[in-house]
Amino acid sequence: MAVYTEVTDDALAAFLADYDIGELIAFRGIAEGVENSNYALRTEAGDFILTLYEKRVDPADLPWFLGLMEHLARHGLSCPLPVRARDGVALRRLAGRHAAVTTFLPGVWPRRVRVEHCAPVGAALARLHLAGAGYGAERANALGPASWAPLLARIGDGADSVRAGLGAELTAALGRLLATWPASLPRGHIHADLFPDNVFFLGGEVSGLIDFYFAATDLFAYDVAICLNAWCFEADGACNVTKARALLRGYQQIRPLAEAERAALPVLAQGAAMRFLLTRLYDWLNTPADALVVRKNPLEYLRRLRFHLDATSEAAYGL
Amino acid sequence: MAVYTEVTDDALAAFLADYDIGELIAFRGIAEGVENSNYALRTEAGDFILTLYEKRVDPADLPWFLGLMEHLARHGLSCPLPVRARDGVALRRLAGRHAAVTTFLPGVWPRRVRVEHCAPVGAALARLHLAGAGYGAERANALGPASWAPLLARIGDGADSVRAGLGAELTAALGRLLATWPASLPRGHIHADLFPDNVFFLGGEVSGLIDFYFAATDLFAYDVAICLNAWCFEADGACNVTKARALLRGYQQIRPLAEAERAALPVLAQGAAMRFLLTRLYDWLNTPADALVVRKNPLEYLRRLRFHLDATSEAAYGL
Repeated sequence: MAVYTEVTDDALAAFLADYDIGELIAFRGIAEGVENSNYALRTEAGDFILTLYEKRVDPADLPWFLGLMEHLARHGLSCPLPVRARDGVALRRLAGRHAAVTTFLPGVWPRRVRVEHCAPVGAALARLHLAGAGYGAERANALGPASWAPLLARIGDGADSVRAGLGAELTAALGRLLATWPASLPRGHIHADLFPDNVFFLGGEVSGLIDFYFAATDLFAYDVAICLNAWCFEADGACNVTKARALLRGYQQIRPLAEAERAALPVLAQGAAMRFLLTRLYDWLNTPADALVVRKNPLEYLRRLRFHLDATSEAAYGL
Repeated sequence: MAVYTEVTDDALAAFLADYDIGELIAFRGIAEGVENSNYALRTEAGDFILTLYEKRVDPADLPWFLGLMEHLARHGLSCPLPVRARDGVALRRLAGRHAAVTTFLPGVWPRRVRVEHCAPVGAALARLHLAGAGYGAERANALGPASWAPLLARIGDGADSVRAGLGAELTAALGRLLATWPASLPRGHIHADLFPDNVFFLGGEVSGLIDFYFAATDLFAYDVAICLNAWCFEADGACNVTKARALLRGYQQIRPLAEAERAALPVLAQGAAMRFLLTRLYDWLNTPADALVVRKNPLEYLRRLRFHLDATSEAAYGL
């Protein structure tokens, strides 16, 4: 749930006065997104999203995120385009927060993933990877492999409070996957969080990708592995190989995976499962029960991790 | 915070197929409203709000609410107009809930009430009262004076757990106000919950009134008294007489209050403060701490109640 920061009408009017987007027509909080406060904003110039960046986003990263979105949009990807104010600056301040206005994207995110969603989302991810070429600055992946052992250490005994034996299981799995983590696969700018609520569809096609606030410079195939975890498992934790095959085929129609990338899919998928398992576990243990945030069950990712640990080749994903 | 019920794309597509409003273009949860789930819905025909009615609304009342909104909109009030599906029926089912599509209203609700808001909201309330004439069916006010003693009894000792002595103070105040409650003032259909988040403004004028799910048939001046409580007190609990005067003058420009209505304002305002104090107190004591609902501080209304108990005439409100 979103909207952590309320914006007074006076503050909003003063903020919008710096833009060339006409008079305010409507302004409603959006109940989506878990990191930032988002508002649907309508002015005489059309529809926009106003985002106030809350404390989980490092302000130092915001110019990179907004620059990436602008680069991707200019290179043909349907993603939010940051709107610059009259002084040419897109990143501004509002209600004590960093804030930006971006364009509104049509579409609906799939509440229930069907096989038919998977090829389009794979293709959209590949287009994102290609469109990012030429955006020069790099951003290290703060939630990449180097972060997992320290995060597991911070969780400490908390893991076993969620499930007996979980700490030891994660320690063993992490040691194994880090030992075989690929060093030299193709890399570039990745979304790193392309879950269903970040992908809008319209008429069966992807109409837009949103929420680039985990984007980073890392292995393309790791981004694919994140999508396999996010899109290709059923509610009971079972892998749906039909979905995985569709997602990978959709991706490869735009950007074929190298043999080394395909071979690394099991370990990359283990890493992706580990990343979401650890951050959810940390949040589970550290979010006050009365916070206005839905805590996501970390154990959904334990089932995925075990599946990937058993996978011996890309055949596990239908290739 | 809203959006308690998730709607799958399949269910939404099937639901919209019954309407003549074109293809789906966008669908976003709205983080406003505390009783129901609301979505901003865009189709080829324009913008709409989709509401799923959650358990606090009695389904038996929904036809009355939707009929009132349709009547008010047809009589010139800017309020959501229920959109009928092809079969002529506006009240439908979606995702296991009763559901309705209404028109989208432009405007922004005032996060911080200024004096300039008060005359327009008073006038809008009077227009609502006049526009409701001719809507034949009545709905008893389930949260009217007859409900307050039973509600206080259900709260019981809980009152003193919030503040020592509160139970006795409320019992005394309730006895006093019920003894002088006016029996025969002008009545009709009232909004009964016209707080700032239910009033949209655009360019300094009221552009729309929303959320009619507490509407009922009751004293017009009681609705005015609810607005005095909702719009004319500062964050520290002090009455802002300038705001009260502006609200009452705005109201009277459209519908002059009878002498008996003006004289009854103190007791009606006591009742309005009692109503919100009691429901907030009940919710405060009965809402699980981890619910995704913002519990509103009941004691804000204790300060208002005391102010109204001290008021000896309408002069307390600037008349």
